[in-house]
Amino acid sequence: MPVTAPLSGIVPPVCTPLDSAGEVDTASLSRLVEHLLGGGVHGLFTLGSTSEVAYLTDRQRGTALKTVVETVGGRVPVLAGVIDTTTHRVLDHAREAEKLGADGLVATAPFYTRTHLRETAGHFRRVRDRVDLPLFAYDLPVSVHSKLSPALVRELAADGTLAGLKDSSGDEGSLRRLLVELGGREGRATGCAPGFSVLTGSELTVDAALLAGADGVVPGLGNVDPAGYVRLWEAARSGDWLLAAKEQERLTSLFALVEAGPEADMGRSSSALGAFKAALRLLGVIECGDTAFPQIPLDATAIAEVGARLRDAGLTTVR
Amino acid sequence: MPVTAPLSGIVPPVCTPLDSAGEVDTASLSRLVEHLLGGGVHGLFTLGSTSEVAYLTDRQRGTALKTVVETVGGRVPVLAGVIDTTTHRVLDHAREAEKLGADGLVATAPFYTRTHLRETAGHFRRVRDRVDLPLFAYDLPVSVHSKLSPALVRELAADGTLAGLKDSSGDEGSLRRLLVELGGREGRATGCAPGFSVLTGSELTVDAALLAGADGVVPGLGNVDPAGYVRLWEAARSGDWLLAAKEQERLTSLFALVEAGPEADMGRSSSALGAFKAALRLLGVIECGDTAFPQIPLDATAIAEVGARLRDAGLTTVR
Amino acid sequence: MPVTAPLSGIVPPVCTPLDSAGEVDTASLSRLVEHLLGGGVHGLFTLGSTSEVAYLTDRQRGTALKTVVETVGGRVPVLAGVIDTTTHRVLDHAREAEKLGADGLVATAPFYTRTHLRETAGHFRRVRDRVDLPLFAYDLPVSVHSKLSPALVRELAADGTLAGLKDSSGDEGSLRRLLVELGGREGRATGCAPGFSVLTGSELTVDAALLAGADGVVPGLGNVDPAGYVRLWEAARSGDWLLAAKEQERLTSLFALVEAGPEADMGRSSSALGAFKAALRLLGVIECGDTAFPQIPLDATAIAEVGARLRDAGLTTVR
Amino acid sequence: MPVTAPLSGIVPPVCTPLDSAGEVDTASLSRLVEHLLGGGVHGLFTLGSTSEVAYLTDRQRGTALKTVVETVGGRVPVLAGVIDTTTHRVLDHAREAEKLGADGLVATAPFYTRTHLRETAGHFRRVRDRVDLPLFAYDLPVSVHSKLSPALVRELAADGTLAGLKDSSGDEGSLRRLLVELGGREGRATGCAPGFSVLTGSELTVDAALLAGADGVVPGLGNVDPAGYVRLWEAARSGDWLLAAKEQERLTSLFALVEAGPEADMGRSSSALGAFKAALRLLGVIECGDTAFPQIPLDATAIAEVGARLRDAGLTTVR
Repeated sequence: MPVTAPLSGIVPPVCTPLDSAGEVDTASLSRLVEHLLGGGVHGLFTLGSTSEVAYLTDRQRGTALKTVVETVGGRVPVLAGVIDTTTHRVLDHAREAEKLGADGLVATAPFYTRTHLRETAGHFRRVRDRVDLPLFAYDLPVSVHSKLSPALVRELAADGTLAGLKDSSGDEGSLRRLLVELGGREGRATGCAPGFSVLTGSELTVDAALLAGADGVVPGLGNVDPAGYVRLWEAARSGDWLLAAKEQERLTSLFALVEAGPEADMGRSSSALGAFKAALRLLGVIECGDTAFPQIPLDATAIAEVGARLRDAGLTTVR
Repeated sequence: MPVTAPLSGIVPPVCTPLDSAGEVDTASLSRLVEHLLGGGVHGLFTLGSTSEVAYLTDRQRGTALKTVVETVGGRVPVLAGVIDTTTHRVLDHAREAEKLGADGLVATAPFYTRTHLRETAGHFRRVRDRVDLPLFAYDLPVSVHSKLSPALVRELAADGTLAGLKDSSGDEGSLRRLLVELGGREGRATGCAPGFSVLTGSELTVDAALLAGADGVVPGLGNVDPAGYVRLWEAARSGDWLLAAKEQERLTSLFALVEAGPEADMGRSSSALGAFKAALRLLGVIECGDTAFPQIPLDATAIAEVGARLRDAGLTTVR
Repeated sequence: MPVTAPLSGIVPPVCTPLDSAGEVDTASLSRLVEHLLGGGVHGLFTLGSTSEVAYLTDRQRGTALKTVVETVGGRVPVLAGVIDTTTHRVLDHAREAEKLGADGLVATAPFYTRTHLRETAGHFRRVRDRVDLPLFAYDLPVSVHSKLSPALVRELAADGTLAGLKDSSGDEGSLRRLLVELGGREGRATGCAPGFSVLTGSELTVDAALLAGADGVVPGLGNVDPAGYVRLWEAARSGDWLLAAKEQERLTSLFALVEAGPEADMGRSSSALGAFKAALRLLGVIECGDTAFPQIPLDATAIAEVGARLRDAGLTTVR
Repeated sequence: MPVTAPLSGIVPPVCTPLDSAGEVDTASLSRLVEHLLGGGVHGLFTLGSTSEVAYLTDRQRGTALKTVVETVGGRVPVLAGVIDTTTHRVLDHAREAEKLGADGLVATAPFYTRTHLRETAGHFRRVRDRVDLPLFAYDLPVSVHSKLSPALVRELAADGTLAGLKDSSGDEGSLRRLLVELGGREGRATGCAPGFSVLTGSELTVDAALLAGADGVVPGLGNVDPAGYVRLWEAARSGDWLLAAKEQERLTSLFALVEAGPEADMGRSSSALGAFKAALRLLGVIECGDTAFPQIPLDATAIAEVGARLRDAGLTTVR
């Protein structure tokens, strides 16, 4: 389904279920897609950080994207991450994603390299120029170690390079500045980039982002509780901000599952991805909760804590 | 005026006007205090980063605090920053602040040193133990290069060490977690630390922080437009979140004055402090816009841009 | 040529010359290899950061490695970088490198992801286990944003996972600790990992690293002046440390060419890579000095400065 | 004793022994000074990071400096740290240090604030201008979170602002560039700043720094084994670089005592300072090994490990 302009609503980054051999479990992935669509989400983002894209080989990336596109069957737009170090490597992924039927692309600034802001601008322009799909910038300093400035995003929005931004920088002040510079809550539609979509990736401040005029959210936790995020979205759309805040509070409590893994023994990243997958397994959505090698897996205690968090949040576990 | 529990509302960090010799201009400082109280603010925070505390000698700190306390005359509570590298140096400032009539203290984690979280906990406990004034933690990673974890703040809130938090970390997700862990919008009053005050120092996301249940805000930009922040606060209190968001948008546009100074020629910090002071001078509140040595001053072009920003925001310049 | 244990001497990271269309210029690359071998170097490292590996597509990486291996024809060992985000992606490169005739592999810790030290250990062990070539760890925090601890390197040296380390961390204290823990200048051969090779990537402290007992160096600047680094190496081997220091001083002056590009207009990384290539072009070794997209190219002024630096260092330019 | 130009040799940063009440133990401090002078050191640096300056009140700083100056009695030059956030606070310390008889001052770049390089230049110039003592810049990014560039240091050396540099940045490549830009091993005396003293604070690469032409070293570990560093210095002066490297290796092994404290339970900084003091106590030099509050103390296991390290290095413990 073509990407609307601006893309809006709940667009979860789709986890990539793996089997015990570490290969993409396509049956589980299809069930996960149905779980998300059943929750009412408005789009899907596959092959992002939450999808463990950095751990998947090119072949596995293709399998995951193909499975998502085919399962969705045009019901919502499917964005595909094209995550690699620099422009020409990104373009190789972009051409593959186009071939497999992605509706839009999501690219970060270059990483591993140290890149000047003007080089990053050239990077996005070249990708947009060479592959004819809407392009979303993925602002993810925790992974790429540079931040997209509001000024650069506005420039690339105004000239049509970017269809939108997924802001996972955690810098809500910067996000607010961008939204105001694009025209603010009421002026966006008549501003310098009317179809530009601003999505936050910060799952704990979605009510705030929507109040500030963001178009939607890409919540990792949305894998676990898509319906919750959809309720939050609907409350905000209807102007019931206290209801939105209340739903956000419930989701914030639930989010604590990302710390189930003991900090001394594993990274925060492995703990979060492991917890999302453990939750999906406990909810009966996917078969196996393994994360990709070399991530350290959650132990039984941590998995039990994930289960407790799910039940506290009112979700029904089946294992 | 004693600090209420929880302290709430608009509590600007008070700029420290200097004369051309670099000494505290007490007449201008008194006028600034009246400007803030006239705008309807609910408390004042002196000797914080916006007060250029790190540039003031002990003698100058005393002069500034004395001037603020005397001018306020008990109309609102006055918090005093006790900013220094470690505990015993902080205590020297705390005893002086108590003597000069401060109603509460604001301390950061140790800096210059590399400090373990358990050491930081001991630091706050010792300060609270030795000087009998409400103690607020100032979470300011950009200056002290460590972040107070929500868990640590909660622990120090629950045991009565801290009366509140000024969160200038820019990490709104972390702030949300803290608020939820303290009981959330509705549960705070019956939670583990009912009188604990959560104040955000992020001036561009105040509507969001209030929607999330924060008690108030310490906005540097509040020096320039205190009435604007008070309007934002009142809108939020009355539940008119769209009005709050609209006021926040106006203030966000105004905030761009902090970038008036050219980035290649001066630090972002000098530019922001210089712009606040230039604005106060253009508004007729203070006599001289100089920042403390060795900060590079704004040039005429930058000052003209500050003036334009003020007028765009509907404020009346007199110079 | 099989990698000796320990690999020692001057092992430059080979630049990847590109033509004006951005493709690998195999003729220039062959000439560069001969330039390096003619200078007396003891090995080559291709597809590292200096080779712009992060900018090359998989196809281009293959072309570059194949060209180097064929040109070398077994005269010295050829190490191949297998640079990618995580283990299974690295393994895809490793299998290709083995097929193309590399004599050893060079891998970093995972990047883009946030990785626990135990995960990094698993990463290196899996790569070593699956592809039967000597494996060198590439410690490059500036790109991968984590540092390999001396303890981890020692563990992986002692158990045979690693054949060596390329230390580009710039942390000479840490390097010294590792060398001492491995037995020190005199005890290395009878220490816990006798064949383990410690190479520094810090081109300005090679005399120091050799005095400390390092086995060799992987100097980016060695592309420009391989004979200079070989002289430094020979002086150190003969115990003439003052002569080594003097040669290091000349190379340090020459190294200033990496700052030829204006800092405001381009990143330090593009400036350094652009300067190495401009130098190689001025020396008549390669045809075209372009760096890979989206790097900003050096302008004529910068190139002229590179030329002046070359001549100051006693090198003969032909353009 | 007036500072020679350039100041050279072994100049340890003097630990500040505390009694069990946390006050400066002047008797132990005097014994420590004699221990250092007895080891043959060429100068002393008091009130630096190793002296726990950031933990000492102004009164305690005065006591420590006075004790050192009086004990030394002009036998070697005494440098005094004047560590505070910005210029005018530093000047207050500088005037006090001058009064107490310091022979030179050591100041860092501003900290807590974010400071532009031109502001840092102004900072050093103002301090030098207002207090007539030789001024040494203390490059300590781990504490002040900015790095002094070689270009800035060279500028301030050439115009007479700085008498020297204590480089604790750990960036040996940058140090080498500075030394070469100042004229190199042989050209320093006829270069742009002939009396300028370059001292490294990196205690594990002293042989390397001396080979590169540094004038001396300020080794924290020199508190524990001053005679070892003096032997290293003498070996280097006599051109016996292998002997220097061998002594450096012994000191590097000894240095591992800084990790005696368990990493999960205390910061690396507390562990290092605690280990130096525990060692001095075990060697019979000081009475009590306590570090300043709020640092977590070493436990008995850690202290036992310190003792073992001392004996392994050939030092005689008396407790």
